[in-house]
Amino acid sequence: MAGGDSDSPLTSPSLEKQFEKFRLQLEDSGSLRERIRAVVMEIESATRLMQASLLLVHQSKPIPQVLEKANAQINVLKDLYNKLAEVVRECPGQYYRYHGDWRSETQMVVSLLAFMHWLETGNLLMHTEAEEKLGLNDSDFALDLEDYLVGICFMSNEMPRYVVNQVTAGDYDCPRKVLKFLTDLHAAFRMLNLRNDFLRKKFDSMKYDLRKVEEVYYDVKIRGLATTGDSVGDQGTQKI
Amino acid sequence: MAGGDSDSPLTSPSLEKQFEKFRLQLEDSGSLRERIRAVVMEIESATRLMQASLLLVHQSKPIPQVLEKANAQINVLKDLYNKLAEVVRECPGQYYRYHGDWRSETQMVVSLLAFMHWLETGNLLMHTEAEEKLGLNDSDFALDLEDYLVGICFMSNEMPRYVVNQVTAGDYDCPRKVLKFLTDLHAAFRMLNLRNDFLRKKFDSMKYDLRKVEEVYYDVKIRGLATTGDSVGDQGTQKI
Amino acid sequence: MAGGDSDSPLTSPSLEKQFEKFRLQLEDSGSLRERIRAVVMEIESATRLMQASLLLVHQSKPIPQVLEKANAQINVLKDLYNKLAEVVRECPGQYYRYHGDWRSETQMVVSLLAFMHWLETGNLLMHTEAEEKLGLNDSDFALDLEDYLVGICFMSNEMPRYVVNQVTAGDYDCPRKVLKFLTDLHAAFRMLNLRNDFLRKKFDSMKYDLRKVEEVYYDVKIRGLATTGDSVGDQGTQKI
Amino acid sequence: MAGGDSDSPLTSPSLEKQFEKFRLQLEDSGSLRERIRAVVMEIESATRLMQASLLLVHQSKPIPQVLEKANAQINVLKDLYNKLAEVVRECPGQYYRYHGDWRSETQMVVSLLAFMHWLETGNLLMHTEAEEKLGLNDSDFALDLEDYLVGICFMSNEMPRYVVNQVTAGDYDCPRKVLKFLTDLHAAFRMLNLRNDFLRKKFDSMKYDLRKVEEVYYDVKIRGLATTGDSVGDQGTQKI
Repeated sequence: MAGGDSDSPLTSPSLEKQFEKFRLQLEDSGSLRERIRAVVMEIESATRLMQASLLLVHQSKPIPQVLEKANAQINVLKDLYNKLAEVVRECPGQYYRYHGDWRSETQMVVSLLAFMHWLETGNLLMHTEAEEKLGLNDSDFALDLEDYLVGICFMSNEMPRYVVNQVTAGDYDCPRKVLKFLTDLHAAFRMLNLRNDFLRKKFDSMKYDLRKVEEVYYDVKIRGLATTGDSVGDQGTQKI
Repeated sequence: MAGGDSDSPLTSPSLEKQFEKFRLQLEDSGSLRERIRAVVMEIESATRLMQASLLLVHQSKPIPQVLEKANAQINVLKDLYNKLAEVVRECPGQYYRYHGDWRSETQMVVSLLAFMHWLETGNLLMHTEAEEKLGLNDSDFALDLEDYLVGICFMSNEMPRYVVNQVTAGDYDCPRKVLKFLTDLHAAFRMLNLRNDFLRKKFDSMKYDLRKVEEVYYDVKIRGLATTGDSVGDQGTQKI
Repeated sequence: MAGGDSDSPLTSPSLEKQFEKFRLQLEDSGSLRERIRAVVMEIESATRLMQASLLLVHQSKPIPQVLEKANAQINVLKDLYNKLAEVVRECPGQYYRYHGDWRSETQMVVSLLAFMHWLETGNLLMHTEAEEKLGLNDSDFALDLEDYLVGICFMSNEMPRYVVNQVTAGDYDCPRKVLKFLTDLHAAFRMLNLRNDFLRKKFDSMKYDLRKVEEVYYDVKIRGLATTGDSVGDQGTQKI
Repeated sequence: MAGGDSDSPLTSPSLEKQFEKFRLQLEDSGSLRERIRAVVMEIESATRLMQASLLLVHQSKPIPQVLEKANAQINVLKDLYNKLAEVVRECPGQYYRYHGDWRSETQMVVSLLAFMHWLETGNLLMHTEAEEKLGLNDSDFALDLEDYLVGICFMSNEMPRYVVNQVTAGDYDCPRKVLKFLTDLHAAFRMLNLRNDFLRKKFDSMKYDLRKVEEVYYDVKIRGLATTGDSVGDQGTQKI
């Protein structure tokens, strides 16, 4: 059976012209996506280096030494996010079109930065502080709020392991401090009315981190290892 | 590291202040999403009315009569898309953040508009024409190209049924015309380098539409029902 | 380690008294459910007999003969639904508590009754007619509307097979009649704003039944087997 | 069979009339469901506030203070259940038709009320007491027994965490009391012949709560921290 039954070219000229335009547009967005992915792969690679340094904290390496190595990657990441912002800026108003391409990597970056910040200061890394560290304090390429919050949940997931290893290494005051931090963080999250399914699920996992840390604190207390007993007033000068 | 262990209230003031800000931001984006969904539900409802009118074409109702009723919904849809654009415009640069909320409904709208346009003119509804019909020819709220292309694939999926019913009703020239149209459309799509998984899958289904229409054309030809044979030159005055 | 550390009985008297009451309540609802299930199994069994008789219609057995055998089960089913209603009536206001236990069986019953009614009259079995046949026209044990509608969708699913077999047996007018019936039925369902996920899915499947019947009608027409051609005015007296 | 093949409008008048009636019925039940869901969302919101207050018990805040805040939500919930009952009462005999829409939220409410009641009295909140607190002691809108029982299982799931945190805070008598309570509760549940799959699964989880509390009690005993030993006779005046 014969299909097309005329001598006309395959497609009508206007059809061809339109699809030629589409072809160019799809190639443009396709190559933009490839350039985004290239940068994101570099981000992932720098993040892995940062994480490798940070993991030494579980082996009781001195915190300043651990942080020094990990901190070195922050500037690398800042440069990469700057590069990413430049690429995305070529398509004004399309940040969220490609957002999925750097989402999970950025959540991981936030979780590491927040853990490092907590090791250094005992406080939560604020949203604006995270943006500053990554040079994202720009109006058209910012750190998405939900990505920040998911990153914080990921950081919380690391806490039980840290506490267990610190106690093993003889730091019996760590559980109390982490418990205070996580309790506050958990209460703060509870202020939010989470409708985003993914974020809600990640937040729900924070409850298990909290329980696990409570159990470690319990172990330390019941053995009388947390020598300071129940009074917490004069512990401020202790270092972990 | 210094663990905060003061008698401060549950959360530190800065933590509380930050999460209060987050709470407001999440409520804002949540209520925006609800407003978007309300308009999208209206779009879906108008689309269903349009589709109900269009379905009569399969029962060989006169095309002008069928189109008149269906066309009446276009202005309703245009108003609704205008309403949607106003809501989305409140968050400049976040079109693609909420895009998923009106995607599939818009693809369905495009497929119906394109089918109506083809019934009327025998030609493919162009991207810009679709935008014009829906009042989307605006720089900050346009018709996403992939949504347009998916909609065209959906239209193609309706063609075999139309051809079958037209032949049943005695219109033996319909398969040839539809085959010419689908063959051109298929060839045009083949110009595109489709990397988007969903669009590629939809395009792949167009091949089956083409085969089915070829088979109907074959049935008609082999029985000598397509009396006009292969020449198409003097068919121009016929109405589809 | 020893658990309970007193000589008191295992549970406090008030606790024991309460759970003894719960035990009785749960046994009551459990045995009620068992009695319901026993009747439902009988319903299923009668339905299978009815279906076995009806299947002969696909082998071109004379319709009156097929219907006679199938009709014989209607009274059996009526008695069983009466029995079911009596059991459920023991718990006023709890029809919907146990509804799930007879749902799918009842949908199947409706689909068979509706197919039989269509074979006999060419019309759709109405909701009230279905209730009457099953003796369910009672205020406290009625035929749930969604069950009726799902049953009608199931009936539609049988139509393509029936049409194919009728044409094979030489009844070339059957596709036209079934197509008219299904087209009307499909249009009627489209009036409903279906939010129930299951029902919506079943309704969506009706579209494929319609297409399949259209294709059979097409086959018949293109071969000139539907001898009456396009005019449908004087077909009313024909018997399938 | 006689196929209807007249020139009647799209659907036969009786068909159209019937489906118009269905449309109205489905809209009615759909809008009822939406009103139910709106109240249920308010119930969920009040429950979250109650839970936020209650969580402070894990940080060793004084129980009366914790309960005061949490108790304040009981009247809010009572009003909301009254509102829900009014909506459901519009459809007599259909409580169980919509029951699934408030089930899990009500189980959560019961679990919190039961935990609060236990903190206050050391006893299990009875079914009728739960109904009274929520104003559900009505014949046509009661607290479903299985929902009550699932709620009690959820309460049990919170007990290990409470015990761990109480011991950490220096309350070494808590494990013994909780163990006595859970042992009795577990034994009481064992009186029931659970056929309901969900409830049985939840009850199975109670065994793990019991084990965990036993382990904490063991830790306390083996270290000689539970100074009061095994005698429970003179503990009656102690507050939990």
